[in-house]
Amino acid sequence: MTSELERTIAGTGIGQGVAVGVVARMSDPLPEPADTPSTRSQAEESERARVSLGVVARELEARGQSAGGAAKDVLEAQAMMAEDPMLSDAIDEALAAGKTAERAVFEAFASFRDQLVAMGGYLGERAADLDDVSQRVIADLGGVAAPGVPNPEHPFILVARDLAPADTAMLDLDKVLGLITSDGGPTSHTAILAREKSIVAVVGAADATGLAEGTRVVLDAAAGIVIADPSDEQVADAERRIAERKAAAVAPVTPGALADGTAIPLLANLGSSAGAQAAADAGAEGVGLFRTEFLFLDAGGSAPTVEQQKEHYIRLLEAFGGKKVVVRVLDAGADKPLQFLNDAHEENPALGLRGLRALRASEDILREQLTALAEADAATDAELWVMAPMVSTVEETRYFVALAREFGIKTAGVMVEVPSLALLADKVAAESDFASIGTNDLTQYTLAADRMLGSVAAFQDPWHPAVLRLVGEVGAAGAAAGKPVGICGEAAADPLLAVVLVGLGATSLSMSTPALVDVRASLLTFTLDEARHLAGIALAADGAAESRAAVAAAALTLKEARS
Amino acid sequence: MTSELERTIAGTGIGQGVAVGVVARMSDPLPEPADTPSTRSQAEESERARVSLGVVARELEARGQSAGGAAKDVLEAQAMMAEDPMLSDAIDEALAAGKTAERAVFEAFASFRDQLVAMGGYLGERAADLDDVSQRVIADLGGVAAPGVPNPEHPFILVARDLAPADTAMLDLDKVLGLITSDGGPTSHTAILAREKSIVAVVGAADATGLAEGTRVVLDAAAGIVIADPSDEQVADAERRIAERKAAAVAPVTPGALADGTAIPLLANLGSSAGAQAAADAGAEGVGLFRTEFLFLDAGGSAPTVEQQKEHYIRLLEAFGGKKVVVRVLDAGADKPLQFLNDAHEENPALGLRGLRALRASEDILREQLTALAEADAATDAELWVMAPMVSTVEETRYFVALAREFGIKTAGVMVEVPSLALLADKVAAESDFASIGTNDLTQYTLAADRMLGSVAAFQDPWHPAVLRLVGEVGAAGAAAGKPVGICGEAAADPLLAVVLVGLGATSLSMSTPALVDVRASLLTFTLDEARHLAGIALAADGAAESRAAVAAAALTLKEARS
Repeated sequence: MTSELERTIAGTGIGQGVAVGVVARMSDPLPEPADTPSTRSQAEESERARVSLGVVARELEARGQSAGGAAKDVLEAQAMMAEDPMLSDAIDEALAAGKTAERAVFEAFASFRDQLVAMGGYLGERAADLDDVSQRVIADLGGVAAPGVPNPEHPFILVARDLAPADTAMLDLDKVLGLITSDGGPTSHTAILAREKSIVAVVGAADATGLAEGTRVVLDAAAGIVIADPSDEQVADAERRIAERKAAAVAPVTPGALADGTAIPLLANLGSSAGAQAAADAGAEGVGLFRTEFLFLDAGGSAPTVEQQKEHYIRLLEAFGGKKVVVRVLDAGADKPLQFLNDAHEENPALGLRGLRALRASEDILREQLTALAEADAATDAELWVMAPMVSTVEETRYFVALAREFGIKTAGVMVEVPSLALLADKVAAESDFASIGTNDLTQYTLAADRMLGSVAAFQDPWHPAVLRLVGEVGAAGAAAGKPVGICGEAAADPLLAVVLVGLGATSLSMSTPALVDVRASLLTFTLDEARHLAGIALAADGAAESRAAVAAAALTLKEARS
Repeated sequence: MTSELERTIAGTGIGQGVAVGVVARMSDPLPEPADTPSTRSQAEESERARVSLGVVARELEARGQSAGGAAKDVLEAQAMMAEDPMLSDAIDEALAAGKTAERAVFEAFASFRDQLVAMGGYLGERAADLDDVSQRVIADLGGVAAPGVPNPEHPFILVARDLAPADTAMLDLDKVLGLITSDGGPTSHTAILAREKSIVAVVGAADATGLAEGTRVVLDAAAGIVIADPSDEQVADAERRIAERKAAAVAPVTPGALADGTAIPLLANLGSSAGAQAAADAGAEGVGLFRTEFLFLDAGGSAPTVEQQKEHYIRLLEAFGGKKVVVRVLDAGADKPLQFLNDAHEENPALGLRGLRALRASEDILREQLTALAEADAATDAELWVMAPMVSTVEETRYFVALAREFGIKTAGVMVEVPSLALLADKVAAESDFASIGTNDLTQYTLAADRMLGSVAAFQDPWHPAVLRLVGEVGAAGAAAGKPVGICGEAAADPLLAVVLVGLGATSLSMSTPALVDVRASLLTFTLDEARHLAGIALAADGAAESRAAVAAAALTLKEARS
């Protein structure tokens, strides 16, 4: 029985969570202040501006104090922007032309904003922070609520057009039961935040713009829907599922497996050995991707010594005694340039001398890293696997595996993140002990769309059948050669896509620690035959959205047939 | 019978040509002048430097006068560099420190060079010009020959490590019988020049460093070898082949076809309607790729009007009355940014908002271009086909074809240059009237290696089996759907690769005009079955070099079995 009020809004669910709560809306941006002459004196307008700038600066400082951490720095920088003398000069100039304080603030901030954007890079990214300060000051001048993230006293479900990085820094995650956005897709900032922090979310739900403040909703990420004004039964059902998920999260963790018992080890992606304990506690059966860039970035201008590296690797391997730990050798270049490796300016660093290409050009660094890894392996009892990033040919595969063997590394493999390597997967499988598919870069290169660039973000979707076909080729080649094929990209953290990847031949999945619970539960819902069936449906689709939708529908049918 | 002196040097042949002649070597760079105190007075050294700088400036001006064209501008700019007052100040400063004129010139130029390189972009590319001036001045000071391109009175075969763009501007192509480089590969600047200008060339022939000035050689690009001190028979054989090729070049041109009569239309790639007549004279059966960027680049800061575009398209279509002309809509972005389309800074422009992505974001420009094309088509009797660049999804294919139809374009298709589109070729074939494979970008994205970046140039090889597999997928999908599949990348200009591409399902080949003769002759050598056999060999290879070598060997076997 459905309630008479009930409305269902469709969107894209992130993860498998369920939430029930009341809506708190992110307020919309203020309208642009009218450019009409002020009726006040210039001195009055100047005083109004000065007061509101001060109020906002003090408020941002106070928020910074209570937020702490990285948010504190952002907020204090914003407070300084509000009282920047150059801005205050620009405001005075506009006031001298007879404008209102609102308009003068608007114009001065907008002009600085444009200058920052033109500078690009880090400064350009600060433009949104400046916009936020401008909005706060104009809101204070008008005596209205500042736009932005709401901060009610009770837990709430946040409804927004989309969340900017600055917004999420302000978010009190203890109170946020879920996120609904009307814009944005599965790769939006909101979606990434939701995945990272395990927040229940439905994104791209266009009709969410009609959800009024205080409306009660059921947010069902697994089904990709929001039910507004749900019936009592719907609330009870949601609460039962929330309880089940809570129970599953604290239940003794079991090794990753499908419904028919097929083992699919679930591993953790780690960026330093700091997260090792949390990953092990969450049931990670090892490490599927250990990134080593931080060791080199932290070491300043030069490479760390063999001893420094060895120490760190030992700490990591000891946390996973007896278990598999896949270490990726230094992946420098592109978005992580290291001065001692990447000295030339490149027009397109993502297509440049990065990963193994850069290491091969500075082989001494690679040799030192392999030395440290082999020594750490000998000193501990974890099962060390070593792999190379950004490999694009069979010849490079052969080179890396032979070099690793020279240092006594027992298991050496390659990351498959360049289309050419996936297309020659059978030959790669003959040369390499294992393959690990990096779906983020593989998607970026297969669709030729920079995964960091907003204007082409819609292409960055691992559900695209072209990407899945390449995964399938690697899976089939691995199966034929009896070599393991792991997944260590973002895709493995999507519970439904994880099943498809297994259907395509993945033999292990590696993800950020918070994703382990949902992926484990999702795998347990399907047999290997079912996973293959879902993979076939994904491959037959026209595009990423069609693939996701068709698989979600087929998965629902399978579940319903069972219950 | 071979001569006793004869030595064979192996390399990579570019094209199918043969040449006989004597070696002229590009001289090696001068050693760095020693940094020892001068024994002359500062005034003497200063006078020496002044005189040599003047001599070199006058010589460069004189060369510019006789060269004319674009080379004149380059040479005059170099002459001005030699007498730049800032450089002369820097030289004086070094002389005041007691250095020799040679060392002072060396240091002053090197410091300016580094500054240019740091500026990057266009200025950075001028660094090589500055180096060249510096070398000339130092050579003049020492009374030795300036390094660089030789200029003997007689025709010669140039032997160099590799040619820089600046070197090729100095090359008297009427005297150059052939090119041999010890460095560089099939995608080096030398190879590109050789293909463009139809110069017989063998590149990457490491042992060519031992070829002495004046040595007689046979240069056999088809076999990828250089024979030093050839026997009389070898010379006679080469001269016979040269005569045959000359006869073929002036023979009445026939339509492109395989040995069994299978028609493979040979088309021209054009960048403006200026080259239309030369292409038609060389037997181009139409235009396989007409780039429209020049219309937009020439129009300055804004897009050309519909009328301006229409006029130009009419001129082009009239030159190919009754024939097929494939026009590519504006491909802005990446290396060809247009301010009115590409305003944002992109970290990786090759993976950015380029091609159809940029046009879709500024759809009015696309609509105007389609309007002008449709009107030009109605006013002429050529067969206009229109295609979109940088298409990566089936949805984009559908969008472009529908939009083109809206304007009355009868034949609308897509370029396949992104791996994802090739991987979904069957679905693309259902939506599009034809496909045209751009092998340059397809190779760049498949191998994830910037095709403009020297440090990863070795990856940019269309012989790579991964690239050929994607071509094969498009070919098979085209055949199944009865849709034409053209090739319009550099690969089609390689006579042997052209046969492989046909074996993979290409139904037409488009190339720069000078390549038509050799490709036509090469196609006539093999049947369709043989082309498919060679394609199978290429696909089975491990990498690009292996693929090229295996196909060359198999092709030779086929030819020998026949004769």
